[in-house]
Amino acid sequence: MTEPAASGPADLIIMGCTALVHDSAERVGFAEDAAIVVRDGVIADVTTTDGVADLDAVERVDARGQAALPGLINCHTHSPMVALRGIAEDLPVEEWFNDYVWPIESNLSERDVELGARLACAEMIRGGVTTFADHYFAMDTVAEVVADTGLRANLGQAYFSSQGPEGRAASLDFALRHRGTADGRITTCLAPHAPYTVDEADLAATAELAREHGLLVHLHAAESRAQTEHSLARHGATPIEILGRAGLLDVDVLIAHGTGIVDRDLPVLAGATGRVGIASAPRGYLKFAWDPTPVRDLAGLGIPVGLATDGAASNNSLDVWEAMALTALVQKSTTGDPRWLTSRQALHHATLQSARAVGLDERIGGIAVGRRADLILVDLTGPHTQPVHDLAATLVHSARSGDVRTTIVDGRVLMRDRELLTVDVAAVVRELGERLPALVERGHGRRIQEYDA
Amino acid sequence: MTEPAASGPADLIIMGCTALVHDSAERVGFAEDAAIVVRDGVIADVTTTDGVADLDAVERVDARGQAALPGLINCHTHSPMVALRGIAEDLPVEEWFNDYVWPIESNLSERDVELGARLACAEMIRGGVTTFADHYFAMDTVAEVVADTGLRANLGQAYFSSQGPEGRAASLDFALRHRGTADGRITTCLAPHAPYTVDEADLAATAELAREHGLLVHLHAAESRAQTEHSLARHGATPIEILGRAGLLDVDVLIAHGTGIVDRDLPVLAGATGRVGIASAPRGYLKFAWDPTPVRDLAGLGIPVGLATDGAASNNSLDVWEAMALTALVQKSTTGDPRWLTSRQALHHATLQSARAVGLDERIGGIAVGRRADLILVDLTGPHTQPVHDLAATLVHSARSGDVRTTIVDGRVLMRDRELLTVDVAAVVRELGERLPALVERGHGRRIQEYDA
Repeated sequence: MTEPAASGPADLIIMGCTALVHDSAERVGFAEDAAIVVRDGVIADVTTTDGVADLDAVERVDARGQAALPGLINCHTHSPMVALRGIAEDLPVEEWFNDYVWPIESNLSERDVELGARLACAEMIRGGVTTFADHYFAMDTVAEVVADTGLRANLGQAYFSSQGPEGRAASLDFALRHRGTADGRITTCLAPHAPYTVDEADLAATAELAREHGLLVHLHAAESRAQTEHSLARHGATPIEILGRAGLLDVDVLIAHGTGIVDRDLPVLAGATGRVGIASAPRGYLKFAWDPTPVRDLAGLGIPVGLATDGAASNNSLDVWEAMALTALVQKSTTGDPRWLTSRQALHHATLQSARAVGLDERIGGIAVGRRADLILVDLTGPHTQPVHDLAATLVHSARSGDVRTTIVDGRVLMRDRELLTVDVAAVVRELGERLPALVERGHGRRIQEYDA
Repeated sequence: MTEPAASGPADLIIMGCTALVHDSAERVGFAEDAAIVVRDGVIADVTTTDGVADLDAVERVDARGQAALPGLINCHTHSPMVALRGIAEDLPVEEWFNDYVWPIESNLSERDVELGARLACAEMIRGGVTTFADHYFAMDTVAEVVADTGLRANLGQAYFSSQGPEGRAASLDFALRHRGTADGRITTCLAPHAPYTVDEADLAATAELAREHGLLVHLHAAESRAQTEHSLARHGATPIEILGRAGLLDVDVLIAHGTGIVDRDLPVLAGATGRVGIASAPRGYLKFAWDPTPVRDLAGLGIPVGLATDGAASNNSLDVWEAMALTALVQKSTTGDPRWLTSRQALHHATLQSARAVGLDERIGGIAVGRRADLILVDLTGPHTQPVHDLAATLVHSARSGDVRTTIVDGRVLMRDRELLTVDVAAVVRELGERLPALVERGHGRRIQEYDA
């Protein structure tokens, strides 16, 4: 795993950790007493602690007692919705959208979006997330926050057909202006909302634009079994079949949440010529009483299933670590098979499959020479993570997001020993608190959209 | 809520917190800017911060930005099994017991039990647990650890019928020798293992002893649907019906896990003349692909369902906070009703229902004058718990066990600002690590019992 040492001191050396690595068959393993050398934002070497004894470095991190993992990837969220965390609880999705979220979202100002996104970034950095795929409005503002906070993100400006062709045009404009910005940490996508809010002609036009500009398409589809049944009754086709007809399975597409993917969708997905990924956010599915994403069926097709949290207004949390544990637990429960979706499989979803789902598998998702240095260090010394008979199980089932001590993106430390270095949480919370009464007002009778799917 | 002030300084005053309180109908509510006054291990007053301005105290805790909750109660665990955390993963329960846990348990020494229990207590204190109901072997040793670490516990010495009448006699002897020890923090029970390992005559004799000595009985029953079916095939009766026939529903009984409780059990439970409680450990049920505890049916009967983690060898964690969140999430999912098991209901399970399930509802489970001062302080200032639109939802769905900053039992601080004051975790982990190779040896062909249920 060693390439010839570059000259001059390394930017960062992490030493003494147990590093999660993948072998050539992508099996998850652990390298003991490992050292990770970072130069110019890239992993330059993965070796032993002894192997870096004589190497100079600008910064050394002693990570004994800690595990080094690829940074977690939140494959589908709406970061500004952190401002609405807890606003509409214990409700079916129709009431959640129509009576709360869409009326309140019609109040959102750019400043609310900024504060929500900033708080979301703080939460994600603290939880070991180094990349997120964000799907929302006012995304110029979110892009600024990403640039400021140092995270990596794939960003898409959402649109409905109810906005007319301007919605799609604005999404494209955003994608072209922002891709490659923030020193390359921002990638972009086209972001139609969903087949029930964007008509088939608009979806087909989106597929054309994606092909023309080499852009990922990120959208909600087959969110629940009820949506699939509704789509069949209304259109004679499932949401996945509609994506197929519109050409969206012949481009790179990231589908949230796919819990309504049914058997007849499997050959459609198998025939996709584009790169299809699914983002799965299991906490929210439990809360809305939706089925789980059919991970086993998708694995059979070789379709990557990345981990996600959805927005905090439905999920209450941007805790991808919890999404990893819940993916293992819910899959065991719903397939009736305790052997399915082992801890190592869950770690594969959290790393390579998530990176693939967001179209970044050449850059992130593994601790290997040449990948971007997006790394997290996880404390294993707490009583709840000891003893360690099986490190994969310890990570998935015993450790928690709060055990992440250090978060690094492109070799830059964004959190050191639990201290956030790029977000002033208290200031954000203070200002957001002053704005909440106006934000949560629902008396004006406006909604940004109607839920009827 | 104020009683006449005692003379002299209070032992402890917690000020500036938001306190979880129950109204006269047991509804969960929150008192803002609250103060809690502790004298002699008991809550002497619950008032406002202004109300304690002139009161002297030996210790004052400034808890601004924190929520004060009754300490969590782990209604069913096997604390020493922390030593086996992660030992047998991704397996059906038969293999888990017969190929791993029961062979390994035949190696356990008193010292292993002590170290496991000590690490378990550290984990629970860090996760805001102040009381646990423990069901295991070598319980004299666990009682010592409880006395040392300052926790409250209900302890039972487990037995199988395969041990002969000595098993039951030893369980009674333990219960009588230890009840009321550790300054009253230890209560005890009779602890037959389960209807599939303890025969009906032995269960009936246990019920007699429970009545004669006024003891709780704590046992596993109807752990899974498969067990219930097996019991019907073998005995023509469900596990709950067997408990009924043996007289165990006419004494105080704590049943773990009850996921195999079926419709025909409901009238049996409704006819119980003893006080029946159920301990529910939802993480383990997901992992073994068991059904959930039928919480809604049990609520209809007025049977308290307390939160639990089971042992760390199956559950990987003693995180009762997670059990609270999973109870809400899994109930929504499996009943198909997003409105069922709200955050306030989850908090009711975590407080009064858990206290009732372990037979301690006159002493713990609420922040109210006269209850023991078992309290936890939970930090709400983290980015993942902000903003707070709905504090019940914040606590259940956004906060995590790691947000507990301070844990207090009987007015004594066991953890202050995340620092454990009564357990030296590093020393325990070091010694346990040395003992693990001998502990995990399975080559000797011995088992403590056979699983066939």
